[in-house]
Amino acid sequence: MTLRVYFSGEIHTDWRDEIIAACEGLDVAFSAPVTDHDASDDCGVAILGAEDSKFWHDHKGAKVNAIRTRRGIEDADVVVVRFGEKYRQWNAAFDAGVASALGKSLIVLQMPEHDHALKEVDAAALAVAREPVQVAQILRYVLTGALPG
Amino acid sequence: MTLRVYFSGEIHTDWRDEIIAACEGLDVAFSAPVTDHDASDDCGVAILGAEDSKFWHDHKGAKVNAIRTRRGIEDADVVVVRFGEKYRQWNAAFDAGVASALGKSLIVLQMPEHDHALKEVDAAALAVAREPVQVAQILRYVLTGALPG
Amino acid sequence: MTLRVYFSGEIHTDWRDEIIAACEGLDVAFSAPVTDHDASDDCGVAILGAEDSKFWHDHKGAKVNAIRTRRGIEDADVVVVRFGEKYRQWNAAFDAGVASALGKSLIVLQMPEHDHALKEVDAAALAVAREPVQVAQILRYVLTGALPG
Amino acid sequence: MTLRVYFSGEIHTDWRDEIIAACEGLDVAFSAPVTDHDASDDCGVAILGAEDSKFWHDHKGAKVNAIRTRRGIEDADVVVVRFGEKYRQWNAAFDAGVASALGKSLIVLQMPEHDHALKEVDAAALAVAREPVQVAQILRYVLTGALPG
Amino acid sequence: MTLRVYFSGEIHTDWRDEIIAACEGLDVAFSAPVTDHDASDDCGVAILGAEDSKFWHDHKGAKVNAIRTRRGIEDADVVVVRFGEKYRQWNAAFDAGVASALGKSLIVLQMPEHDHALKEVDAAALAVAREPVQVAQILRYVLTGALPG
Amino acid sequence: MTLRVYFSGEIHTDWRDEIIAACEGLDVAFSAPVTDHDASDDCGVAILGAEDSKFWHDHKGAKVNAIRTRRGIEDADVVVVRFGEKYRQWNAAFDAGVASALGKSLIVLQMPEHDHALKEVDAAALAVAREPVQVAQILRYVLTGALPG
Amino acid sequence: MTLRVYFSGEIHTDWRDEIIAACEGLDVAFSAPVTDHDASDDCGVAILGAEDSKFWHDHKGAKVNAIRTRRGIEDADVVVVRFGEKYRQWNAAFDAGVASALGKSLIVLQMPEHDHALKEVDAAALAVAREPVQVAQILRYVLTGALPG
Amino acid sequence: MTLRVYFSGEIHTDWRDEIIAACEGLDVAFSAPVTDHDASDDCGVAILGAEDSKFWHDHKGAKVNAIRTRRGIEDADVVVVRFGEKYRQWNAAFDAGVASALGKSLIVLQMPEHDHALKEVDAAALAVAREPVQVAQILRYVLTGALPG
Repeated sequence: MTLRVYFSGEIHTDWRDEIIAACEGLDVAFSAPVTDHDASDDCGVAILGAEDSKFWHDHKGAKVNAIRTRRGIEDADVVVVRFGEKYRQWNAAFDAGVASALGKSLIVLQMPEHDHALKEVDAAALAVAREPVQVAQILRYVLTGALPG
Repeated sequence: MTLRVYFSGEIHTDWRDEIIAACEGLDVAFSAPVTDHDASDDCGVAILGAEDSKFWHDHKGAKVNAIRTRRGIEDADVVVVRFGEKYRQWNAAFDAGVASALGKSLIVLQMPEHDHALKEVDAAALAVAREPVQVAQILRYVLTGALPG
Repeated sequence: MTLRVYFSGEIHTDWRDEIIAACEGLDVAFSAPVTDHDASDDCGVAILGAEDSKFWHDHKGAKVNAIRTRRGIEDADVVVVRFGEKYRQWNAAFDAGVASALGKSLIVLQMPEHDHALKEVDAAALAVAREPVQVAQILRYVLTGALPG
Repeated sequence: MTLRVYFSGEIHTDWRDEIIAACEGLDVAFSAPVTDHDASDDCGVAILGAEDSKFWHDHKGAKVNAIRTRRGIEDADVVVVRFGEKYRQWNAAFDAGVASALGKSLIVLQMPEHDHALKEVDAAALAVAREPVQVAQILRYVLTGALPG
Repeated sequence: MTLRVYFSGEIHTDWRDEIIAACEGLDVAFSAPVTDHDASDDCGVAILGAEDSKFWHDHKGAKVNAIRTRRGIEDADVVVVRFGEKYRQWNAAFDAGVASALGKSLIVLQMPEHDHALKEVDAAALAVAREPVQVAQILRYVLTGALPG
Repeated sequence: MTLRVYFSGEIHTDWRDEIIAACEGLDVAFSAPVTDHDASDDCGVAILGAEDSKFWHDHKGAKVNAIRTRRGIEDADVVVVRFGEKYRQWNAAFDAGVASALGKSLIVLQMPEHDHALKEVDAAALAVAREPVQVAQILRYVLTGALPG
Repeated sequence: MTLRVYFSGEIHTDWRDEIIAACEGLDVAFSAPVTDHDASDDCGVAILGAEDSKFWHDHKGAKVNAIRTRRGIEDADVVVVRFGEKYRQWNAAFDAGVASALGKSLIVLQMPEHDHALKEVDAAALAVAREPVQVAQILRYVLTGALPG
Repeated sequence: MTLRVYFSGEIHTDWRDEIIAACEGLDVAFSAPVTDHDASDDCGVAILGAEDSKFWHDHKGAKVNAIRTRRGIEDADVVVVRFGEKYRQWNAAFDAGVASALGKSLIVLQMPEHDHALKEVDAAALAVAREPVQVAQILRYVLTGALPG
């Protein structure tokens, strides 16, 4: 049976590709939000018409993106949420809350500097990883029982 | 029937008291996390024993706090999540995600400066308020039909 | 145990009061949307600030009203949905769909002229009544076993 | 993973075909109610036997159609509900209510003239589109990240 | 906390009263269907208007009764289903199926003669009793820990 | 998408085969209980060891059969329950109750002589058929929109 | 709002009373299984009739006890599971699994000697306590924010 | 349709292989925890970094293993839990509790010596087997209707 994994969070580095590459040979189906920042910000108005107000511009986009996010999380066995160095990333923490409430297996990928700020999110996770390769090692272990090294 | 309201998020200003005061006479039952910052940080080790590692110190505390938070959100009709000026506040966004996944009515209380960063959270909310009094006005309207002014 | 009844739909006649009066002596807790048409239309902007666009004006109001509607339907044992002579009343049919999906006992109150147009809604209902007094008679029978006459 | 989309509502124009054509190349599985108006009206009595009363004639048909509708909505990731110019279309609004209560991603397709009457339905939707092609553009964006133009 | 018990099934003997009497002093809230056979058969047409066809006459009544039955079972902690000597009693077995699917604690009250015919129902039950007093003894034990004798 | 149909109830006539034959060409996956009466009665003790008491003999068998029944109903889109001329058939009514509580589309197949006794079960059904071919006609209509004749 | 706490597990020491005493003044409603060992073992046959086989003797008792256990866990906000020094205590671990799957806040009370054997149970818990007083301190903190000392 | 079976519990004998071999030719998909004892104990620290404390060493491992266990149980139609001669095996009983609360068909595989200690677990099971081959016989019967011999 394929393991379905959803990648939420930071979209400015290639951590998703790193994990996917390190999962070569595993029966995993990956999904993720749209990671093109501009498309993600403008999808609502680009399709459904412009808005004068920035608030509603953002609102329409966030809702269109939610169609993809909601399905990705609901269909997943495992939700990986990555917190990067910059930005507020409240959407990442929001996704973690959704995943937790839906009973998904949550893996958090974050720097030690954020440990205290992420303690409530980490407390709901089944693993807290520091590097993308660790996420791949977890998925490999979960699917095959093989440990690194 | 009493309306049950849970207050999540920022614990450094008295926004909760402001809302409660402005709801005088309404049939509302308010709940909230422990808002004593030190107690909230140390509850795990104070009760269950010290930890050498800061990570596990935080972890034990976050889990004990989760007993209160989880019940507060699950029992609520309305979850109000306040984002303040400072700190990362990932726990607030996490709570909003939980509330949303559980189908709770979500009210976000936040400054316009955060609109873009909170667009995914706002997209899941039934109201985005700027001032605590607006939250009270919503609760008053929901319970009595009366509008301000 | 109190029977909780939510009254959805038409807000221009006094059908709710008629049912409540005819239920005298029964252990029923009634709830309903805000039935002041102007307040219901304007609650969003009155509390959360004006909008230039009529669409978002309506949107903010509909969401604030949803806090009350959602709770009313979720807490109810029985949802009564009244379709009147005028207007499109899509919100009434929407509430009936929500009630049906949540497994609530649905009673539809409507004129014979609407039978064909309401056949899908009626098919999900446990009773189709023509007059408010019939709804009260159903509630009285459900609670006491007594039939009219 | 295939995106499952259910098309509810108006059955007198070819909006479904328009969307399907504009989704060429996408991994989408579409479903819909029976759109042959006469078959849809008469299916109950045609299979299960005639009724003297028009009410029960309609009732039997609405229930047989519900077997298809219920499955279509429950299996869908996205429910698109189209409101046309004519008729009361309470079944469309009812389907929107069911979809919303089941946590489906709801897209409403409707004319600006109906904005006020549909405000409660729109408030539960993740997108309000005016033209069928916009629905296809949303589905394309959700699946591929590509925006029109 | 009050234990809520729903009594489903046979309505021609006074087994409900027997159990209630034997539960004196216990904190139990009992509910049951309408046990007046004529009222139960005719409630639909008595309130909502006569039907030419016996099938729809029965149909309307069964649905009105379902408002009470559904609430009784959904609100119950324990559902007691009594199978008597006579009649087909398919509604009793249907209620047992509903109770089982909803995760209610099911107690079956039946004669040894019916053991083979009820084996699937009994397999879903937490107790199979022969006499009403045994049901009361179970409720007393569950609430107080006291055994008979 | 394949329509999954579970056949519950009477196992002494070939009504299942009749429906399957009449569904030729349709994308339907049928499932059913074990219809070998002796195997069904004895499966518990044949595999898990003999019992002195007939009650526990039956009990063990009923539970082993429940593994198949439970999965069949939970996986189904449509549950068809057939009531035959003979026997008490409480397991059929029990299955109908389970199907109804799980929100499955229920089709009852029964003789007019049983209408009154089955009124509560019929009230929960989306169709009441008299002949197996009608069930096939419903499935054909639901999948293709084609009516008989 | 009262906090509902269920005490599962070891019944040979007075740990429940210790916690209850240490919770004086708190708004907590405690529930527990029947802790009279003999009554608990024999309740099935004492009420429902003797069995020749020890297996079915135990079976009938375990099912009657499940009426109380199931309700206790389902109604609880917090489930405390105590593992003592002796016996296999599989029912305690079973209750912990049920509590976890139902999303209850789980507190495990156990000796360090059992840490390795309980690691899967502890991993699902929000707190692992060594002494009954710690459980009371957690409940006091959760309800009032007050820490010991 | 493939029957999905999860094997929980004892990992020191080859009972899983025995069942799989005896199920030759059946459409069953088996899953299980990682049965390499050392890998299972150390997976947390091997991937996510060493811990000074044995408690947290175990904790990290138990949580990583829970990703696999949780998915195995949630995806299963049937959960088989084996209790062996040695060790406390609280994780096996915990898994049985999870499976029961999720409504899975539970088969317990255990020695008669453990009957009394497992009575609560057995009471929630649909079969109690003594030998692996009996589990295979149950699966064969459930899928094909064929009994052994």
